[in-house]
Amino acid sequence: MRIAIDAMGGDHAPDVVVAGALEAAREWSDTKVILIGDASRIEPLIAQAGAKPANLEIRHAAEIIEADDEPVKAVRRKKDASMVVAGRMVHEQEADAMISAGNTGALMTTGLLVVGRIKGIERPALAPMIPSIDGKGMLALDLGANMDATAEQLLQYAIMGSIYRKKVHGIEKPSVGLLNVGTEAMKGNELTKAAFPLLEQAPIHFIGNVESRDVLRGPCDVLVCDGFAGNIMLKSVEGAASVIFSAMKTEFMRNLATKLAALVLKPGLTRFRHSFDYSEHGAAPLLGINGLLLKSHGSSDAKAIKNAVRQARIAVQNDLVKSISTEISNGREL
Amino acid sequence: MRIAIDAMGGDHAPDVVVAGALEAAREWSDTKVILIGDASRIEPLIAQAGAKPANLEIRHAAEIIEADDEPVKAVRRKKDASMVVAGRMVHEQEADAMISAGNTGALMTTGLLVVGRIKGIERPALAPMIPSIDGKGMLALDLGANMDATAEQLLQYAIMGSIYRKKVHGIEKPSVGLLNVGTEAMKGNELTKAAFPLLEQAPIHFIGNVESRDVLRGPCDVLVCDGFAGNIMLKSVEGAASVIFSAMKTEFMRNLATKLAALVLKPGLTRFRHSFDYSEHGAAPLLGINGLLLKSHGSSDAKAIKNAVRQARIAVQNDLVKSISTEISNGREL
Repeated sequence: MRIAIDAMGGDHAPDVVVAGALEAAREWSDTKVILIGDASRIEPLIAQAGAKPANLEIRHAAEIIEADDEPVKAVRRKKDASMVVAGRMVHEQEADAMISAGNTGALMTTGLLVVGRIKGIERPALAPMIPSIDGKGMLALDLGANMDATAEQLLQYAIMGSIYRKKVHGIEKPSVGLLNVGTEAMKGNELTKAAFPLLEQAPIHFIGNVESRDVLRGPCDVLVCDGFAGNIMLKSVEGAASVIFSAMKTEFMRNLATKLAALVLKPGLTRFRHSFDYSEHGAAPLLGINGLLLKSHGSSDAKAIKNAVRQARIAVQNDLVKSISTEISNGREL
Repeated sequence: MRIAIDAMGGDHAPDVVVAGALEAAREWSDTKVILIGDASRIEPLIAQAGAKPANLEIRHAAEIIEADDEPVKAVRRKKDASMVVAGRMVHEQEADAMISAGNTGALMTTGLLVVGRIKGIERPALAPMIPSIDGKGMLALDLGANMDATAEQLLQYAIMGSIYRKKVHGIEKPSVGLLNVGTEAMKGNELTKAAFPLLEQAPIHFIGNVESRDVLRGPCDVLVCDGFAGNIMLKSVEGAASVIFSAMKTEFMRNLATKLAALVLKPGLTRFRHSFDYSEHGAAPLLGINGLLLKSHGSSDAKAIKNAVRQARIAVQNDLVKSISTEISNGREL
């Protein structure tokens, strides 16, 4: 198996990406890990870390797509950017998967323009795991690839998300919920009302509408939404958590008694807070692309990069992309 | 001034509604408070409370719209329901405003079918105050009257919300934000992208996109959104708050040390939690109706009902409805 890693993407690139790639190469000797990027920066990092594993390769790429680059323009113009080169390797089947912690929009553009869609997929979807209080998390899609969606596209998200949960997470019959403002069947806007009957009839385990109020309780394995509503939901939750935790901190610092009390409570609260940390929930697949692309969090550390390699391995071993492609062309029972 | 109150609407009707109406009548002798509902239930409550103020009237209405009634059907069929009678009084200018803590959908239907829209308004909007960490709160609209909206409707929401904040809350130049997934001008879905330039050109103080992450920090005086996105946002925040507070409680109960620590911190945290309590932020006007309709929270207590009367008084004294009507027909500078 060959996994291409964009060495130049992410807040701490190339250092942590190289470190993560090294760890992955050492852990899985059956996997060729290909680091793509500026060789003059990657090589010294590897030399520092000791002997280069035999299954680690470097592929030089002179350009870098920056975090604030305009995605379409960057992918079109920077043909020798590490991300674009990695995408091309997937397209040309020189790599079985690619991982990047770089510019999300550019990665989606790389998926669309360099790798290409699965036949029959209208819109690829970005599908991160979002945390839930039960610790299991949900795969939510679309979270960012497309702001607007049609009912048919939501249906495709549901199918792709179900396959991913089954193939990569081993969930036999993943439950699918539709993000909505209430649980009753006819709740919502034109889009959710049109999507509901399609999801009911689809070869998936549709459990109905999921109210945004209940999302954190983990009511389903796959949460389907358009990119706009999903982002509103996720950022509202993040914002609320951030406001509450900072208000809590203020309360803790009020006086000596509260400071001492806080000391007692801190370990438990910190543990709880970490369960809200999105960066600990793995890389997000870009589903619907005719090849495996994983988006690691921009702030990924070496462990997160290594974990993305683990995810990629499982997805490749279980023929994720081919399964989606077959399902979309067949409408076969999941 | 004459204010009609639906005595039969709300979780604790008619008891708390009557109590609140009595308090309001005693406080504002220049205001005629008209309680509408089952006289055989209202009269004993008033008798119990002592002498009936001269400015308190009872208007008997035999029917009640229940919380789980289907709104349109209920308003059409129950012509003698307390809520519908109150609406009719506003329509026939027998009352200057009406207040109900009853079925929200039915109140919106009463507004549309019994009272009628302001000429030029495409869709009335429900505009509650939502809490913010700075304690000031924001008027958010639409939050429930219509799930889908057009860019032109969002523009009307912005204008109506600005007038309300100015007329009722005395804010000279209310700032208006557009709920979105990012702050940059071209962020969002088709709807927000189309609304943005309209809001920029409108005679309002538009401050741009407001990311849902920042809503609780109170970035603007008026937050504009379609009913679906607004509900997703609000319920996500509520859900996150509820999950976090209940996890906190679990932490507090872990052992004797944490229980003691919690005892020290509780007053401050409770105070903070109350600032998240939507029911403490007054009644929500239904803006765009050709008459003043205020929706009190279903769980309103007497104080909340009295406060709704206070709000109604200010709105009537400042010619809220006429100001909206003039603005919508003129496009005049706010």
